[in-house]
Amino acid sequence: MNKKKIGIIGATGYTGSELVRTLKNHPYVEISIITSESRAGEKFSDVHPFFQGIEEQKLRSIKEIDNYDLDLVFLALPHGVSMNFVKDNAHKSFKIIDLSGDFRIKSKEQYEAWYKMEHIYAEGIENAVFGMPELFTDKIRTAELIANPGCFPTSAILASAPLLTGKYVDNKSIIIDSKTGVTGAGIKSKPTNLYSNVNDNFKAYGLKSHRHTIEIQNILEEISGDSALVQFTPHLLPVDRGILSTTYLRPVKNVSENELVNFYKDFYSKAPFVRIRRQIPTIKDVRGTNYCDININYDERTNTIIIVSVIDNLVKGAAGQAVQNMNILFGLDEKSGLNQIPMNP
Amino acid sequence: MNKKKIGIIGATGYTGSELVRTLKNHPYVEISIITSESRAGEKFSDVHPFFQGIEEQKLRSIKEIDNYDLDLVFLALPHGVSMNFVKDNAHKSFKIIDLSGDFRIKSKEQYEAWYKMEHIYAEGIENAVFGMPELFTDKIRTAELIANPGCFPTSAILASAPLLTGKYVDNKSIIIDSKTGVTGAGIKSKPTNLYSNVNDNFKAYGLKSHRHTIEIQNILEEISGDSALVQFTPHLLPVDRGILSTTYLRPVKNVSENELVNFYKDFYSKAPFVRIRRQIPTIKDVRGTNYCDININYDERTNTIIIVSVIDNLVKGAAGQAVQNMNILFGLDEKSGLNQIPMNP
Amino acid sequence: MNKKKIGIIGATGYTGSELVRTLKNHPYVEISIITSESRAGEKFSDVHPFFQGIEEQKLRSIKEIDNYDLDLVFLALPHGVSMNFVKDNAHKSFKIIDLSGDFRIKSKEQYEAWYKMEHIYAEGIENAVFGMPELFTDKIRTAELIANPGCFPTSAILASAPLLTGKYVDNKSIIIDSKTGVTGAGIKSKPTNLYSNVNDNFKAYGLKSHRHTIEIQNILEEISGDSALVQFTPHLLPVDRGILSTTYLRPVKNVSENELVNFYKDFYSKAPFVRIRRQIPTIKDVRGTNYCDININYDERTNTIIIVSVIDNLVKGAAGQAVQNMNILFGLDEKSGLNQIPMNP
Amino acid sequence: MNKKKIGIIGATGYTGSELVRTLKNHPYVEISIITSESRAGEKFSDVHPFFQGIEEQKLRSIKEIDNYDLDLVFLALPHGVSMNFVKDNAHKSFKIIDLSGDFRIKSKEQYEAWYKMEHIYAEGIENAVFGMPELFTDKIRTAELIANPGCFPTSAILASAPLLTGKYVDNKSIIIDSKTGVTGAGIKSKPTNLYSNVNDNFKAYGLKSHRHTIEIQNILEEISGDSALVQFTPHLLPVDRGILSTTYLRPVKNVSENELVNFYKDFYSKAPFVRIRRQIPTIKDVRGTNYCDININYDERTNTIIIVSVIDNLVKGAAGQAVQNMNILFGLDEKSGLNQIPMNP
Repeated sequence: MNKKKIGIIGATGYTGSELVRTLKNHPYVEISIITSESRAGEKFSDVHPFFQGIEEQKLRSIKEIDNYDLDLVFLALPHGVSMNFVKDNAHKSFKIIDLSGDFRIKSKEQYEAWYKMEHIYAEGIENAVFGMPELFTDKIRTAELIANPGCFPTSAILASAPLLTGKYVDNKSIIIDSKTGVTGAGIKSKPTNLYSNVNDNFKAYGLKSHRHTIEIQNILEEISGDSALVQFTPHLLPVDRGILSTTYLRPVKNVSENELVNFYKDFYSKAPFVRIRRQIPTIKDVRGTNYCDININYDERTNTIIIVSVIDNLVKGAAGQAVQNMNILFGLDEKSGLNQIPMNP
Repeated sequence: MNKKKIGIIGATGYTGSELVRTLKNHPYVEISIITSESRAGEKFSDVHPFFQGIEEQKLRSIKEIDNYDLDLVFLALPHGVSMNFVKDNAHKSFKIIDLSGDFRIKSKEQYEAWYKMEHIYAEGIENAVFGMPELFTDKIRTAELIANPGCFPTSAILASAPLLTGKYVDNKSIIIDSKTGVTGAGIKSKPTNLYSNVNDNFKAYGLKSHRHTIEIQNILEEISGDSALVQFTPHLLPVDRGILSTTYLRPVKNVSENELVNFYKDFYSKAPFVRIRRQIPTIKDVRGTNYCDININYDERTNTIIIVSVIDNLVKGAAGQAVQNMNILFGLDEKSGLNQIPMNP
Repeated sequence: MNKKKIGIIGATGYTGSELVRTLKNHPYVEISIITSESRAGEKFSDVHPFFQGIEEQKLRSIKEIDNYDLDLVFLALPHGVSMNFVKDNAHKSFKIIDLSGDFRIKSKEQYEAWYKMEHIYAEGIENAVFGMPELFTDKIRTAELIANPGCFPTSAILASAPLLTGKYVDNKSIIIDSKTGVTGAGIKSKPTNLYSNVNDNFKAYGLKSHRHTIEIQNILEEISGDSALVQFTPHLLPVDRGILSTTYLRPVKNVSENELVNFYKDFYSKAPFVRIRRQIPTIKDVRGTNYCDININYDERTNTIIIVSVIDNLVKGAAGQAVQNMNILFGLDEKSGLNQIPMNP
Repeated sequence: MNKKKIGIIGATGYTGSELVRTLKNHPYVEISIITSESRAGEKFSDVHPFFQGIEEQKLRSIKEIDNYDLDLVFLALPHGVSMNFVKDNAHKSFKIIDLSGDFRIKSKEQYEAWYKMEHIYAEGIENAVFGMPELFTDKIRTAELIANPGCFPTSAILASAPLLTGKYVDNKSIIIDSKTGVTGAGIKSKPTNLYSNVNDNFKAYGLKSHRHTIEIQNILEEISGDSALVQFTPHLLPVDRGILSTTYLRPVKNVSENELVNFYKDFYSKAPFVRIRRQIPTIKDVRGTNYCDININYDERTNTIIIVSVIDNLVKGAAGQAVQNMNILFGLDEKSGLNQIPMNP
């Protein structure tokens, strides 16, 4: 089989470097071009020195992509920038997997309300497939444009999806208390990711207004076929990578913990990266991998279901899930190139 | 004024060392005796070497305490051990502030159900005063035995007390998602506090069954005069000290965020260590101090109140609050010896 | 006694906030003015929110300082900026303690060679006293301008000074391997102090060329009366604060570890903040305090002396030592306001 | 090709789990048996839960190893225990790679002097090959028993070997200041690896007496053909994994930095895991991989060579180097199964 030709658009951030880390050892693809407007001409290993001897190709301008006969491009661009690329390139022969938030929201209006920014390509929103393989494999298989899910939504939706699909819980009483590592804030230096502001520290942020709220709520509505209300509160952990979400739901019928565990196992029986865990998982249990680990609890005393889910925000929450989507698009084994074992400790 | 004579029972843990850190610079007390059965005969600075040149007194056996004409003793003992000391010494002339959980629960039966251990001194449970100065100052003033609140309960009760007192919220729908530093697990080496299990990691634990659940629920019932149901989930942060609690409550009447902020300011107008914060607080904002910082949010979209509260678990959650209780007992300024300024970073 | 009137010039960095943390509880001074050009008009607690309720005074422009009848000002300014203030204000009645590097170097030429910047006030260099109380108390007592030592030099000079004074070692073979917390790099966001570049990481930097090399070498030459050669290598630790220096020296006469320990104890017998430690100290042993802990080792096998010294870079390495210098200048007890006990953990 | 049959003796520690992490994706081997005396009968994923779904085989007693027709066993046992296994199994047909210190030292006498323990199998010491592929490939190829190098020695020897081989430096003046992550201290809970003793902290330890001193000194003597004196000081970093060694050497002839860099490049031209770095490397630059990154500096001012080297102590310092040795023993590509890319951040 000829290797598929891949472009990575945007190289200087964590998503770009994680894509290279994952794809470099992928048996069925080659990285044909990596672009960066600010560092074009330099080597990838000049920007990320730990790639010295591993990935030494030169960074190119985005203008050169048409020279490479690409099968697929990953967009590792900020939201607001991705939409321009997609608009300009939607008609081309390569598939697009966009890792920004630009095509995850259901309508131009919603996007503009939560992102406080004009959306210039509503047609893309209509055509984009939400790239969560555990829920939408069939659509992904034939998509032209995939909106790779947000990091928080990945951890939150996988945690709740079985309960909402199975009509187990009240759609209007979903509380998601999430905790993320710092890489979620990106690689640019700013007070939010200053070492001494984060180390030995912890805080909540974005209360009531975080953009991932609407992304989660939309998908939960879609899979349950009913309107939903999601309360989502992110917090910032003093760790590099990892998300743990604690989700509180209220049952609308009699349940037992055992029944729920079995239901989850069935629901995810064909999902190679979802592990239903006996113990409460830790974020290091999935570090560097594409796993989402889920633990299910039911508290009889209070009649509350509590789901604990963990992912690596840069892998299952970004680059790894994107490669999983690519594998499905190309008809490959979903796990190709994603056999990393958790680095713990 | 003669300095009050203080005994510290139990010296090898964090609570013991924090009590010395706080009391050593207190203007109105002297530390007459520090006990340790396992290290008796050694100096305090042999056990905690960073006290070299600061506190060099010898550790004594508990059997010697009657030689010191003490005004008050702090018990820095594990639960299950404290009750023995209290039973044996309740009739003596010194006051007792117990930092363990042995006298925080409302009945012998409840204690035994949540602590999975027999309680041998029910009389102490009846006589003990719950030492939260912001709620029970008058009772503290005349107490013989003070049960110093747990660390999680301090952060959680101060966050919710105004709302329950003011009948703003549904007593049966209180979700407290708490995150604590590692020192909450004590100084003894075990897998829970092994560096490589904690560093760059995060997990939930004690779901459905943590002992602090019933302590919180009891006090919220007491101040609201009505039964309550508390869902409490602790998580372990990769930090030394600090607790942040995110509390979700459901209003039972029309509210606005502004009204709630003002209500909190009134409620705590005489509480020198509660700061109603404009911004969301971080745990480093109170590190090393007796402050509890609280931030109030109301989400109209979901009709949910979200309170974020932070404390230092070893200070306001243990040694500092104990000293605050001592100050009240002795008729001193509540802030004596507690003028530390947050160490940030 | 009337409280002395203090000005703090420069409020937005860590040095400014540590000065306020230390001075706020100092019994004999009052903070009359705090300046910031970029944040003038805002409150100090707007810039450092953890001071809410503790220090709420407004920040002023530096132009207003003449209105306050100051006894002393601390300069918490970057190097290159301090020299301008000193030049403009040297004739005024207040004393100046400069926490930057501008007046620590022995000559305009040396400064310009190591700092790669013109020095505009050579007269200040001549008049400045190097503010290390353990070595230069008498000069400090009558100084008009004090150059507060650098953080690395404080840990390194205190470690080696007895040996060089006592002619125990080869002046030309001094290797200082130092490790510092991140706050040494300042509060401005940049890749060096980005959380994910520092956390779970470690590196050397500034090999061969760090400015503190010449500061250390100068002082060691001064106290030994002979020329010296210092090899100084700094490293960046994933911690907020603290410096540990491991210094390797070669004896020029027969020594024993015991003899050296006693010599150090004598040498520092009147230094309240130097603790000769039996055990190897850790940086948390001095965290938040003005202590410098020193441990002395002699390896017979290799004929090498190894000194391990630790300080808190923001306290003994900056604000605390500055206050110690102020106390000496004012004829106060050297320890006034500096009774903090290490925060460990 | 038939896959080689591998045994891992000792499963509960970090070395055991890293061996599985590396070998599980190795194309030419299968893990036939993993032993643990304390946990025999449980699954590997019961001991290391993050292997759920990845490695579920049962742990066996060491007594069963003869049932598996093994080609090679890795000993992930404590020193003092390994020697017993080797003595009992030296005559068997499988090769042995011992990851403990039991066969790294050159003589029974030296071992007993530095390890303070009797060595019961001197014959093994004589036959063992020191498994550092960059220096001893030919011997490794035909070895029956390989002593896998210590973590510190790996970083230190690779840093200095070219200089000693090339007679560039004084053998008697080698100072190695090393800093290691906590996993070097093993998985057992003890004060040394207690979170709150390590986090935001730093210390030196083992001055003058660390066992790796003699291991380093022996090998440097062997490759230089002359006696050497090594001063080795380890320090404990608040990180999980990684070692950085800063080595100071004194030239005995005229050198330039450029010449040295070229000499290193030549020396390691056939070593796929040694990277001569332009910049100073950080420990995260090699995290999770078998690389050793080296940076070379010469300070003309002091006539000192400073080498900075970094490794992952659990990979190049343990399991990865062991697999590299196995590859050589089996005549495989040295890099088989070792294509991990640094996880950074």
